[in-house]
Amino acid sequence: MMEDHIFYDCATAPSPRRARIFIAEKGLDIPTVQVDLRNKEQLGEAYRAINPRCTVPALKLPGGQVLGDNASIARYLEEIRPDPPLMGRDPVEKAVIAEWNAIAESDGLLAMAEIIRNSLPGMKGRALTGPKDYDQIPELAERGKARIGHFFDLLNDRLSKQAYLGGEAFSVADITAYVVIDFAGWVKLVPGENHEALNRWYDAVAARPSAKV
Amino acid sequence: MMEDHIFYDCATAPSPRRARIFIAEKGLDIPTVQVDLRNKEQLGEAYRAINPRCTVPALKLPGGQVLGDNASIARYLEEIRPDPPLMGRDPVEKAVIAEWNAIAESDGLLAMAEIIRNSLPGMKGRALTGPKDYDQIPELAERGKARIGHFFDLLNDRLSKQAYLGGEAFSVADITAYVVIDFAGWVKLVPGENHEALNRWYDAVAARPSAKV
Repeated sequence: MMEDHIFYDCATAPSPRRARIFIAEKGLDIPTVQVDLRNKEQLGEAYRAINPRCTVPALKLPGGQVLGDNASIARYLEEIRPDPPLMGRDPVEKAVIAEWNAIAESDGLLAMAEIIRNSLPGMKGRALTGPKDYDQIPELAERGKARIGHFFDLLNDRLSKQAYLGGEAFSVADITAYVVIDFAGWVKLVPGENHEALNRWYDAVAARPSAKV
Repeated sequence: MMEDHIFYDCATAPSPRRARIFIAEKGLDIPTVQVDLRNKEQLGEAYRAINPRCTVPALKLPGGQVLGDNASIARYLEEIRPDPPLMGRDPVEKAVIAEWNAIAESDGLLAMAEIIRNSLPGMKGRALTGPKDYDQIPELAERGKARIGHFFDLLNDRLSKQAYLGGEAFSVADITAYVVIDFAGWVKLVPGENHEALNRWYDAVAARPSAKV
């Protein structure tokens, strides 16, 4: 139990789920505060004082400093709790995992965010995360659907050659891609029967205890 | 001289410039191949066989494996050449640098790419990098300009409190933000006189020998 840290979470949102799975894979237990995104608590004064970027996840450190995104939280936890490694064991593996995590973010998570934020009525004026409001652009939602289709193909191709995205070991890149696939299910975008390797990988990741958190 | 590596570059483009500055800061000298983005060489068969994502920068390793983005190239070089550190020296500094590099990518580089790719006639059908074609969305270019304004404000606020984005040491986060600011100059978006801290930091980074590469 890491009593001297506080994890700011939202149980229903994809981004903090990435950190939640990472924490579970590390075998860590961190006191958690739920931030109510549905009621825009992240934009209120209290949370803004914690994370001025108004996003979850965030992690408050013993010194009071706050890490405000998945990049920083994963890097910090990997450093203070190296086992099991989730970001690679040697220079090349570390690099490949960083690359596939970035691909899952840009081609997967960002495309999904573009779909959700530019189409749901409840997201009106909230086309991007953060303290500033931006109008919805419906064409982005449409484009996002095409991108997710390409993302499934890309993952399937990669996973037909190796067990996990970063190589032979499960890593943070798998966490990101897995969260994207469940997120895509919100709008009924699911891998097809032809995505055999992707489906096999998905089932393996979903069977890990960390996937239940 | 790292004779057994090949760096795939494009001297006029912002993304490979990030890697180029990183390489220079590490004091490395890597054989370099120019990829002619203006004539869409990155989409041709020869380069596609090197990097199927059709982007620069890329780095071919001695074993033949290719790293295909800035995330992987920076991580690899930081591991094999730790000095000078560009990605932090302790867990918290490493995390903060990762976070500000991600912010410079999402709020800065991505916003600039949205402006350029959704407005220039020469980018028609190329609204996103990579092997797939996507139509331009003019509203994205407009939104990008607003985002860059907010990005300048964010950097100025941060740099009014500390010397560099990640803390007291120059890092990869500064490289990314610096490349974004020069990129923004392409469309005449420049920090204002009120961005005093940002301008001071910019001048300091621009004076480094690595900024000339």
